[in-house]
Amino acid sequence: PSGRILCLVNGAFSERFAHIASMCGREVDRYDVAWGQVHAIPQLEERLAMRKYSGVTVVHSETSTGALNDVRAVSDCAHRHGLVCLIDSVSGLGGAELRFDEWNLDYVLTGSQKALALPPGLSFGAASTSFIDRANATQGRGVYFDLVELDAYARRNQTPSTPALSLFYALEAQLKSIATEGLEARWARHKAMAARTQEWLIKISDETGKKLNNIAPLGSQSPTVSAIRLPTDLPAERFTAAVAKRGIVVGNGYGKLKSSTFRIGHMGDHTVESLEGCLAACSSVLRS
Amino acid sequence: PSGRILCLVNGAFSERFAHIASMCGREVDRYDVAWGQVHAIPQLEERLAMRKYSGVTVVHSETSTGALNDVRAVSDCAHRHGLVCLIDSVSGLGGAELRFDEWNLDYVLTGSQKALALPPGLSFGAASTSFIDRANATQGRGVYFDLVELDAYARRNQTPSTPALSLFYALEAQLKSIATEGLEARWARHKAMAARTQEWLIKISDETGKKLNNIAPLGSQSPTVSAIRLPTDLPAERFTAAVAKRGIVVGNGYGKLKSSTFRIGHMGDHTVESLEGCLAACSSVLRS
Repeated sequence: PSGRILCLVNGAFSERFAHIASMCGREVDRYDVAWGQVHAIPQLEERLAMRKYSGVTVVHSETSTGALNDVRAVSDCAHRHGLVCLIDSVSGLGGAELRFDEWNLDYVLTGSQKALALPPGLSFGAASTSFIDRANATQGRGVYFDLVELDAYARRNQTPSTPALSLFYALEAQLKSIATEGLEARWARHKAMAARTQEWLIKISDETGKKLNNIAPLGSQSPTVSAIRLPTDLPAERFTAAVAKRGIVVGNGYGKLKSSTFRIGHMGDHTVESLEGCLAACSSVLRS
Repeated sequence: PSGRILCLVNGAFSERFAHIASMCGREVDRYDVAWGQVHAIPQLEERLAMRKYSGVTVVHSETSTGALNDVRAVSDCAHRHGLVCLIDSVSGLGGAELRFDEWNLDYVLTGSQKALALPPGLSFGAASTSFIDRANATQGRGVYFDLVELDAYARRNQTPSTPALSLFYALEAQLKSIATEGLEARWARHKAMAARTQEWLIKISDETGKKLNNIAPLGSQSPTVSAIRLPTDLPAERFTAAVAKRGIVVGNGYGKLKSSTFRIGHMGDHTVESLEGCLAACSSVLRS
């Protein structure tokens, strides 16, 4: 629907979401919290009560910070004010619990290359029937991202233009594998990987006396990615390069966290067992 | 640039180009010619002289009809009136002669799955420096197709978001193969395939007494695809099914030509030799 958008910003990708809304010609207000933090529902309530909006954008798992927003609560809050809620779950979906129908969500998008563990090149969106109806009543939807047309083709099991067919074969194989594991088991596996990372973090900090901490607070840590602040005398570039020498890739921080944090992507086909190798390599660098 | 757009329409994909311009909120006029025909430059001159436009859209090789527009002449004409010219060369580029710099073109787009003979899933656009400068001065460009951002990343050999990396490997291999063949040799090979198809068409019509003809006139036939009108008592569905039984896929007509024409895609990695098998299967059906 047309109208002003409130964008919940707590990292690089929620920032990007606000940028997209603005580049699409929308008037945008931001509700910013510190990178690594999540948004408070009472604060959100206040903002929505103060000004008339048509929609809220929120990022589920902030890939840049490893913070996990409670998108169900955000969506419920938006609905209480009669607004739609758009959810970016790029690194969330397939790794973090998300129940589209039960939670009464409006629109969720994701990519293939994160917790779904597919090659990059596909993106997916789920829209509620009422969201598509609202889109149908909205002008200037463009063509490439026109939900109404995408939905009409999807009902015939088609796409409006030629898709990346070779990746569809990978998708078919991976969806079978995901169904075999079971979504709840998959969410539990990701939670266990995040918990193991947090446990390791405390232990290695104690052991080495180095000050390392997860920038997302306990209870708001994404099950798919941990962003860990390094001691100031250990820049992320140096740390990740040393880890890479041990045959393991961990990421630098993203955006303004580039040098101060590193990120472990414990998602997709990874397991607590495969994560151990990564943590051992990180330990080895921190001990040296 | 903002302003009214003149869309040259002579088939399903040029129709789609007009639809895109209109869905992007542009005021659109159409210059229509019959499907299978191409646009006349003097007529285009007249229309551009009569009304103020900011741009012209044209399809190089109309995949739905096999008609080849003289995009160089169309672009020159647009430039004489101070307008930019946007060229869809989805089934043209890599098969039909196109010289971006020498012809002083503004913007050309194509897909991976046609004459470049790559898996579907990639699209390519080439924009002149002055076109990007004009984009930079234009509001409401969105994000996904923002040429200014795409250009800025391309200068660093990057993309603004994660691309379909696995297809980039196919692209790298195919570009090497295209460079080895040489672009002019590639254009000549496609021309020879179109000429061979036209020659076959006349011969098989003579031989069987059946009235078949290329819907694009001689001189305006695409080197990459031929759309051939069948006798009224032979619907395309029946013809292409019979050809398929002989192990060869030819296409039905597209859009309103669905039942009255069939299409041979002689493009990509095909050669005059590999085309012979296709023509033999078509002959066999027409003789039976």
